[in-house]
Amino acid sequence: MKKGYVHVYTGNGKGKTTAALGLALRAVCAGKKVFFGQFVKGMDYSELACTAFVPNLDIRQFGRDCFINHAPTDEDIQCARDGLEAFKNILSRDDYDLVVMDELNIALYYKLFSVQEAIDTIKNAKEHIEVIITGRYAPQEIIELADLVTDMKEIKHYYTSGVQARKGIEF
Amino acid sequence: MKKGYVHVYTGNGKGKTTAALGLALRAVCAGKKVFFGQFVKGMDYSELACTAFVPNLDIRQFGRDCFINHAPTDEDIQCARDGLEAFKNILSRDDYDLVVMDELNIALYYKLFSVQEAIDTIKNAKEHIEVIITGRYAPQEIIELADLVTDMKEIKHYYTSGVQARKGIEF
Repeated sequence: MKKGYVHVYTGNGKGKTTAALGLALRAVCAGKKVFFGQFVKGMDYSELACTAFVPNLDIRQFGRDCFINHAPTDEDIQCARDGLEAFKNILSRDDYDLVVMDELNIALYYKLFSVQEAIDTIKNAKEHIEVIITGRYAPQEIIELADLVTDMKEIKHYYTSGVQARKGIEF
Repeated sequence: MKKGYVHVYTGNGKGKTTAALGLALRAVCAGKKVFFGQFVKGMDYSELACTAFVPNLDIRQFGRDCFINHAPTDEDIQCARDGLEAFKNILSRDDYDLVVMDELNIALYYKLFSVQEAIDTIKNAKEHIEVIITGRYAPQEIIELADLVTDMKEIKHYYTSGVQARKGIEF
């Protein structure tokens, strides 16, 4: 079994979750099995519909919304902790070849669980699994653990011109 | 018809074409029609296989390889020019909602056609089309034209540890 690596896609620019989605698609095209888990998110993203036609891809959400307008509640923390438990289980098994921990960095930023718990979960993964971590504010410990880190930097964004998030483009 | 925007994903980090692929998948999930054209590339990427199961997505390659070991030949230039003509046609029609010009920046970097020709092609696009441009070395004129620019910066890459590009992850 080939060794899997740990990728981190962080930074304030558009493209982090989107790149993870592209990686997921490329991987299933090559016959790999993919688990795409999303912390913090519970909204109706277009990509949730893709499991209807993309084979070998499972998507699960472990959140409710993105804390733009409020601090995380006990329920948000419980959702995230349930997610971490699900990842512990998934990463200890052979069912998947590529596992996306979408918005893990945001879950850590909001202290929904500890960085050490996340690190331990990733370090205990079966060796063949490629682990993809996304979200702004990647903590230094996650960056040190990773084999590949891309910082997506916003140079220009249409949000600053008042354009709202659009279905099929942002969600 | 809603206005489409121009996105640029550039920089030296992993995730540019991958983000475009993720955008393509999200867009088709939302019922949009996508054209994904690749300059410079003619290699067997895993993602080429996804049109077998992803609806409303057309992928075409307008290149042979990526000039790592040689300067562009007349044939490479002709491939890229054919690609530009194809994009001119596609962007002037209503068939697609999202059009990816993958590695356009690399085609410009190698002067396979002029920046002005690329700019004119994009400016003449039907207003509803979302145009996605990828590749390192985005020229200033392309950045100025764009509504959204993300610079994917390599912080760490396993290539520097001797890991080779792997099927299903890099291609």
